[in-house]
Amino acid sequence: MTWYIDQGPESDVIISSRVRLARNLNGFPFPHRMDNKQAKEAADLIIQAFFREEPEIKRQYVIVDLETMSQEDRLALAEKRLISDDLAENGLNHRAIISLDESVSIMINEEDHIRIQSMQSGLNLHEAFDSALRMAGRLDTILDLSHCERYGYLTACPTNTGTGMRASVMAHLPGLGLGGRIKSTVEGLQKLNFAVRGRYGEHSKSQGNLFQISNQLTLGISEADLINDLQSMLQQLIEQERQARQELYRQQRPIIEDRVMRAYGILTAARLMSTQEAEQLLSDLRLGISLELICSVNHSDINRIEATIGPASIQKTKGRLMSPDERDQERAAVIRSLLDKKTKNKSDSQTAD
Amino acid sequence: MTWYIDQGPESDVIISSRVRLARNLNGFPFPHRMDNKQAKEAADLIIQAFFREEPEIKRQYVIVDLETMSQEDRLALAEKRLISDDLAENGLNHRAIISLDESVSIMINEEDHIRIQSMQSGLNLHEAFDSALRMAGRLDTILDLSHCERYGYLTACPTNTGTGMRASVMAHLPGLGLGGRIKSTVEGLQKLNFAVRGRYGEHSKSQGNLFQISNQLTLGISEADLINDLQSMLQQLIEQERQARQELYRQQRPIIEDRVMRAYGILTAARLMSTQEAEQLLSDLRLGISLELICSVNHSDINRIEATIGPASIQKTKGRLMSPDERDQERAAVIRSLLDKKTKNKSDSQTAD
Repeated sequence: MTWYIDQGPESDVIISSRVRLARNLNGFPFPHRMDNKQAKEAADLIIQAFFREEPEIKRQYVIVDLETMSQEDRLALAEKRLISDDLAENGLNHRAIISLDESVSIMINEEDHIRIQSMQSGLNLHEAFDSALRMAGRLDTILDLSHCERYGYLTACPTNTGTGMRASVMAHLPGLGLGGRIKSTVEGLQKLNFAVRGRYGEHSKSQGNLFQISNQLTLGISEADLINDLQSMLQQLIEQERQARQELYRQQRPIIEDRVMRAYGILTAARLMSTQEAEQLLSDLRLGISLELICSVNHSDINRIEATIGPASIQKTKGRLMSPDERDQERAAVIRSLLDKKTKNKSDSQTAD
Repeated sequence: MTWYIDQGPESDVIISSRVRLARNLNGFPFPHRMDNKQAKEAADLIIQAFFREEPEIKRQYVIVDLETMSQEDRLALAEKRLISDDLAENGLNHRAIISLDESVSIMINEEDHIRIQSMQSGLNLHEAFDSALRMAGRLDTILDLSHCERYGYLTACPTNTGTGMRASVMAHLPGLGLGGRIKSTVEGLQKLNFAVRGRYGEHSKSQGNLFQISNQLTLGISEADLINDLQSMLQQLIEQERQARQELYRQQRPIIEDRVMRAYGILTAARLMSTQEAEQLLSDLRLGISLELICSVNHSDINRIEATIGPASIQKTKGRLMSPDERDQERAAVIRSLLDKKTKNKSDSQTAD
């Protein structure tokens, strides 16, 4: 099931879990040193290996040739986090294999020859890992992957060498954020060797109280241990965040209610909406859902909205290029329609009860 | 009918019309020079004269003894503009006679011994003048009022001497305001000898694009001419404002729609609302009503809300003193309930159609 339609465990705090495995082919230079011919050869090998003799796989996955796609289509895939920003940039033999339910994608000729990623809703690192590992295994039986006893999987960047794994979650931390405790929380996580980034990866600032949290280590520790470490840290973080929300609500009830209800009021009324404002208001709405101030929408509704309203996604849905003003207008309309539909369904089902 | 429930002529631009007549008693010093005994005597004389032998008047008017009222009750009357801020301040023998429909009030021992004011909805200066004059005539037949052939009615401040009249309107000018033309408009009006003030009188700034516009002259010109001058200037101003709104809407349609719909969204959702924010949002809502973007409420609904949400009115309705935070909470609740009621009535009547 598409991760953002599902509502996984602890979804009040953890929006999604992602595991990425980096693999490389023996006998080829790393992608940044390959020529066009080598890159094409590598891509073909990987795609053939992946789609070999299994009708189920052919039905569930599509090959995406990023070279021949428009920039907007590439960016729309990046906004959904199905491919990285790097892969979305114009490059030779950039390919991806994407599952139709958008939970698994295999990037080809990104920083490494192969990057497999698996997304799950909520806190579900084990399932994300199992699923990524199955796909890696599928390739491993056919392809000659760079691996050595001493270091494990070899990667273009030494920080990934070993497991080649990065396990991460997208966490929503408005309680710690509004309570003024986010800085100390982030510093604490960094001391424990976890990486914390904003919504849009490496160098981005946090928007809408969303943080990507991941393991830093890849060498000298097993995948299972890495995931267990991350998972048990997250259990604590989830508790801290929930307590922070309750505390905030106890101490500033009218202010929090006002914040949440205004967010709902504006999202259902506005005719112009920037991505940045939408993210902030949707963050407030998520907080309202978890405090049970808002019942007509749930966390996965917000996920679905967020997956739809990026600049490229808006243009892709509409099927044409748009100016920033037009996009802001269309984004406001999309949000209204999605929230309105939910409210209508809600009142329909109430009538039926 | 209470002016703010009615919807008078040109009510898309002119919210209300007011005529005030100043009169003084012969044989008494002006109020600021009276002692307590004189002030009481004057007040008694005026009240007796007003209520003499006419059961209808007794049914329609009440005497308000401001000295014995709480400060909040006095301020609530001032917020409704039934009495002036000066009269609401603690002073000896401050009295008022107020019609139950809140259209006429007679202030006693304000700057002058007698100040009669009549309010009408929309642009309706003639009716406001007629009504104020009837009340003045009622007093004139009994009381010995200061008047001389040469100067007309004598008043405490020479700027009122002559007719003792101030005719004014409350105009809503968002088109000129948002279009950046309000400064030149105000300067033009001042050159023509009209006074322009903010929402709250003499030294106040405009809030919510509301302006009090009145005659400056009182001497050497008849009441009828003053009112005709003001009225014909206002007809032009109304046209300018309407054109400015249409132009604004044509040129910035998405921005104006966004502004109006957000105002509605916030007013129907917020849990905390300051007077100042409410005035700005209600101004946007008025603009939306006149551009037919909002149909579920009309201008007199906004009048009614504005007459209800001042700090003192909020406390009077609730029957107790409140902190600013509590008032902001109560104000938000009052606005939501008034707008929600209108929407419900609207959908009820639609169902009934």
